[in-house]
Amino acid sequence: MLESGSTIGILGGGQLGRMLALAAARLGLRCHVFAPSPDSCAFDVVHRVTCADYADAGALDRFAADVDVITYEFENVPAEAASFLASRKPVIPDPDILAITQDRLSEKDFIAKLGIQTARYASISSLDTLECAIEAIGLPAVLKTRRFGYDGKGQVSIREDTDPAAAWRGIGQQPAIVESFVLFEREVSIVAARAQNGRIECFDLTENEHRDHILARSRVPARVPDALAREAQAIAEKIAAAFGYVGVFAVEMFVLSQKLLVNEIAPRVHNSGHWTIDGASVSQFEQHIRAIAGWPLAKPRRHGALEMINLIGDEVKDAERWLRHPGACLHLYGKSAPRPGRKMGHVTLLGGD
Amino acid sequence: MLESGSTIGILGGGQLGRMLALAAARLGLRCHVFAPSPDSCAFDVVHRVTCADYADAGALDRFAADVDVITYEFENVPAEAASFLASRKPVIPDPDILAITQDRLSEKDFIAKLGIQTARYASISSLDTLECAIEAIGLPAVLKTRRFGYDGKGQVSIREDTDPAAAWRGIGQQPAIVESFVLFEREVSIVAARAQNGRIECFDLTENEHRDHILARSRVPARVPDALAREAQAIAEKIAAAFGYVGVFAVEMFVLSQKLLVNEIAPRVHNSGHWTIDGASVSQFEQHIRAIAGWPLAKPRRHGALEMINLIGDEVKDAERWLRHPGACLHLYGKSAPRPGRKMGHVTLLGGD
Repeated sequence: MLESGSTIGILGGGQLGRMLALAAARLGLRCHVFAPSPDSCAFDVVHRVTCADYADAGALDRFAADVDVITYEFENVPAEAASFLASRKPVIPDPDILAITQDRLSEKDFIAKLGIQTARYASISSLDTLECAIEAIGLPAVLKTRRFGYDGKGQVSIREDTDPAAAWRGIGQQPAIVESFVLFEREVSIVAARAQNGRIECFDLTENEHRDHILARSRVPARVPDALAREAQAIAEKIAAAFGYVGVFAVEMFVLSQKLLVNEIAPRVHNSGHWTIDGASVSQFEQHIRAIAGWPLAKPRRHGALEMINLIGDEVKDAERWLRHPGACLHLYGKSAPRPGRKMGHVTLLGGD
Repeated sequence: MLESGSTIGILGGGQLGRMLALAAARLGLRCHVFAPSPDSCAFDVVHRVTCADYADAGALDRFAADVDVITYEFENVPAEAASFLASRKPVIPDPDILAITQDRLSEKDFIAKLGIQTARYASISSLDTLECAIEAIGLPAVLKTRRFGYDGKGQVSIREDTDPAAAWRGIGQQPAIVESFVLFEREVSIVAARAQNGRIECFDLTENEHRDHILARSRVPARVPDALAREAQAIAEKIAAAFGYVGVFAVEMFVLSQKLLVNEIAPRVHNSGHWTIDGASVSQFEQHIRAIAGWPLAKPRRHGALEMINLIGDEVKDAERWLRHPGACLHLYGKSAPRPGRKMGHVTLLGGD
């Protein structure tokens, strides 16, 4: 168990790192954030910062020397940086898990091997393999780069009238997967924490709405039968156990004809779990800090029905309106420029307003 | 209205400053903490710190230049420092209010002039005046220095067998007041926020238990009739309006035969309001930040019945037990040495466990 007053190293300086640091502070822990960008919003709330590139071995070395345990706020931390650090201090969750989830193909293979359903998919390495896969899987489908995709980046839809060659060029002719397009009824996610002793605590199944591939709104509880919610938890537990995972993670799923198809695993705190800050007795951020510190997890209690609304780009201009809205809890991330698609803050609505 | 990304200056680096800074961070605001002690626990969670004496004019000047608005976490900020700063940037709440509440006599006179009941009291400037006052007020009574008293410091009980001269020496023969000892049924407090436009939002009346003059436990709602709880709110509103107060404050009161006697005003966030972090839709810390930033206040909603337990001195060693306790939300302040009487953290118990 990490002692109170210890220092947690966080790779990445965005809002997830910021909210992790705020949760650590509640527990008497210090944070040191490592991030390449000088205007990282997590820098404002921590004891120490390192602003350096992930390839800067000297900076990584000094960072490792200053902290007691290292975690990350996003899944695209370069594998080299993670393993360099892991040779110096505990990096949790294990960088080997990062390596799997950074690659959409190995992630899907991992899930499928556990007997968990996903959309039909195939590995793509050339235009030929893409044409074969379309034949096998059918249309519509989505072509996605294997690596570095998030919020809709690195993906192209393929319909009856799409030229496969154009789609292949569209993603830069990189190693990819093609997935059958799922006409889902709902998108849901489970956010859960797994402790070093293997104990798992799940937050309630959350229903998500995306707009332009970016999460716009979550509501909890998800409007699905109890049996399906329990199945979602069982899937999350199976995945976490197979990884030997420690910390918080999210599993995004589609609901289709009373079945669940796993879409993606996020090996980190997740936007669809932001409601837990105001809406539960323990937040996803605190559960993650507890897990990586080797502390016991809390059993979350939810404060009724809730919604979470992201403030994306110019929507941050509604902040004053949200300050006046009954039952609304406003979070702003302290970012300067409200660029389109940039997550600037979020609102939790208590009591299902 | 202060813009998001602005910097709030906080005088004082203890746990109240720390929790104010964490609340400001949720709202996208930066904090700069000014405190004399290098191991101030608020330093760990803010953008910038100044470690200097309150008499250091150069440091105060640089601090004022870096921030947009200034507030304080405790009422014993030297009046000179507050007025020096007030000539440079807005200091909220108004330092004139500090001057009144820093002096027990002027505080009691202020309350009495509003027609609000207190214990009987008298001004003491010599052994003679003390002996007269005991005659008038009766025993038991409490002799308290007019200035710099908190958590039971600077006060002496006077009973039938107490030598008044010894009591007078006991508080260092300083200007003082003597108060009739109130055999109260309960101690309660109202924590409330007043906005720049005069609007007031009160948190629910809280019942407090002290041990060795230090708050040990709070519970909410207080076990008093509704009419008394409403009267407590009316008293808080009257005091705040008379001060033209902006920010969060607390009024401590005694309950005696279905009457309320005001004991003390704290012109700041207050230990008996810590339950609001986990137990309400908005915390006292966020309300204070909203008020001093000129933002609208939120209407607090409480998550059921609650208790707050302070972890004082060695009680912080129970932290691991509290981590495992169902419905317990643990807060540690990141202080190194658990000295006797030192507030090290607190626990909020949800659902009245």
